[in-house]
Amino acid sequence: MKLASLTHGRDGRLVVVSNDLTRATDAFPVVATLQGALDDWERCAPRLSDLSEGLEHGSVPSFRFHEHDCASPLPRAYQWVDGSAYVNHVDLVRKARGAEMPASFWTDPLMYQGGSDSFLGPRQPIRIASEDYGIDLEAEIAVITGDVPMGVSPDEARALIRLVMLVNDVSLRNLIPAELAKGFGFLQSKPSSAFSPVAVTPGELGSAWKDGKLHLPLLAQINGKPFGKPEAGIDMTFDFGVLIAHAAKTRPLVAGTIVGSGTVSNRDADGGPGRRVGEGGLGYACIAEQRMVETIRDGAAKTPFLRFGDSVRIEMKDAAGHSIFGAIDQEIMPYVR
Amino acid sequence: MKLASLTHGRDGRLVVVSNDLTRATDAFPVVATLQGALDDWERCAPRLSDLSEGLEHGSVPSFRFHEHDCASPLPRAYQWVDGSAYVNHVDLVRKARGAEMPASFWTDPLMYQGGSDSFLGPRQPIRIASEDYGIDLEAEIAVITGDVPMGVSPDEARALIRLVMLVNDVSLRNLIPAELAKGFGFLQSKPSSAFSPVAVTPGELGSAWKDGKLHLPLLAQINGKPFGKPEAGIDMTFDFGVLIAHAAKTRPLVAGTIVGSGTVSNRDADGGPGRRVGEGGLGYACIAEQRMVETIRDGAAKTPFLRFGDSVRIEMKDAAGHSIFGAIDQEIMPYVR
Repeated sequence: MKLASLTHGRDGRLVVVSNDLTRATDAFPVVATLQGALDDWERCAPRLSDLSEGLEHGSVPSFRFHEHDCASPLPRAYQWVDGSAYVNHVDLVRKARGAEMPASFWTDPLMYQGGSDSFLGPRQPIRIASEDYGIDLEAEIAVITGDVPMGVSPDEARALIRLVMLVNDVSLRNLIPAELAKGFGFLQSKPSSAFSPVAVTPGELGSAWKDGKLHLPLLAQINGKPFGKPEAGIDMTFDFGVLIAHAAKTRPLVAGTIVGSGTVSNRDADGGPGRRVGEGGLGYACIAEQRMVETIRDGAAKTPFLRFGDSVRIEMKDAAGHSIFGAIDQEIMPYVR
Repeated sequence: MKLASLTHGRDGRLVVVSNDLTRATDAFPVVATLQGALDDWERCAPRLSDLSEGLEHGSVPSFRFHEHDCASPLPRAYQWVDGSAYVNHVDLVRKARGAEMPASFWTDPLMYQGGSDSFLGPRQPIRIASEDYGIDLEAEIAVITGDVPMGVSPDEARALIRLVMLVNDVSLRNLIPAELAKGFGFLQSKPSSAFSPVAVTPGELGSAWKDGKLHLPLLAQINGKPFGKPEAGIDMTFDFGVLIAHAAKTRPLVAGTIVGSGTVSNRDADGGPGRRVGEGGLGYACIAEQRMVETIRDGAAKTPFLRFGDSVRIEMKDAAGHSIFGAIDQEIMPYVR
């Protein structure tokens, strides 16, 4: 089953989308919004699934689906926590700084509490006051959970994953060092994120969803050129079950909690840092990683962060080459009040 | 105007509460939930205000109001960010560690993104898996905002404060050092917070609300004994306008965003760290502060953190001695799945 929220009011208008992303049918006879569906999943999911089946068979009224009509599946959410599950990426951050990564980072997930109140739509521009903030994409996988009890195990947590999405966790790199030095984590350095047009049930992903990981390449483009295609199922040290359990150690998580994987990152085939797509490598899911590799290899970063007018596209395709979640496709624009 | 959310479903049932907290009337003819009211404040606020007036005059149907029937005013919210506006408190944290606080902390607010999906009701027990986590209260003031545009000024932000509340920002002190050392801020060390039964419009606070600060003592008790009575309007380096502007520097804040003051903390009359209530001082709003003062004065902390069976009460009274927000009153209990 595939779900999307068409832009409408604060929470969007929930629609069920066909598997090939061409048609949609209104979910209103079942529930008005995705948060409403998650709040009452046991009742809603089977009925939405019936609509989904009717849509595939042409037995329910439907209309043409346009990705650019979509808000993020949850335009505002009660929680967004983002892990750093690809420890390879964290290791590179440290190496580029000339620092050692603590060994515990391989067993204890890094995770931050993000702002969840004002997500961008997948085609909305990223409006930032200054290019000097060091604007970067971070292409990630994210899941939406049901109600998660405090102290849940990773196995139990995996069964509570309701939907899977892609996310662009926009980061302001030049604000990060000073903010993290204060000790309280990210705030100003993480502006609003954007999610893929469509959220998909794990069951719909078939064999690509296994052990709490999504085993397909995550495709990132900058200005229409391939930038990265790392395999999201490879080098993911902590699967989503482990990430959810980490977030729920001392508190319950309410239905509609979004948990992110952190920037997808693969080592190169030789075990070293990844190479650019143009050099035959898998590329990167954020510019910071490319800059870190440049720093390690050449002594200095040379790829600039994003400029006004640049565009970023994040997508994932199935084995047959069809887009699974639709595309996040955003232009960077100046913010003027 | 005073508003509360009676325990009901996921978002409570909004009621308008009489000024003396004895009676309430259902807000349902206007709007069902507090989030609904905040989403459409221009329309709802005048009508809720009419209900409030009717309640005072006995011209609307009403029923007896019981604080223990209340959920937090927003049982789940789209955002909870908590500042450390009482820089005196932060300075003490550093002094107790033998470290210098950076001078920038007097001009650039410390603030963390908190979990907002699962708040406790004001009379709900605080359930924690282990006393070894170092369970502590933090008595604070919090405000709920309307929609805040990105890049708002502190002056503009002050005008967007819709409601004022008290909060117990429960903290797990022994989990904090390792978590902050990882660099991504609080997550497991901040379990669910609880808010006062009643949220109050700034206008209702009269002269006690001035310049984005609440000028009254915040009363904290542990096990029925006075623990703290610091003046929330004193030593608040950053008023709520500055805190909101800080949070909104790189992104908009959606209506219903909750912004906290951080632990209220006053210097002693002689300019040094505060003394205990029993010693003629104003006491503390968290046990950690008392332990820091003990460390600075006596070389070691001796007051233990909270144990199972302990209780915490947080309240604020007006000049006539009447409770303004009702009381947060919570028992610490073991969490067993």
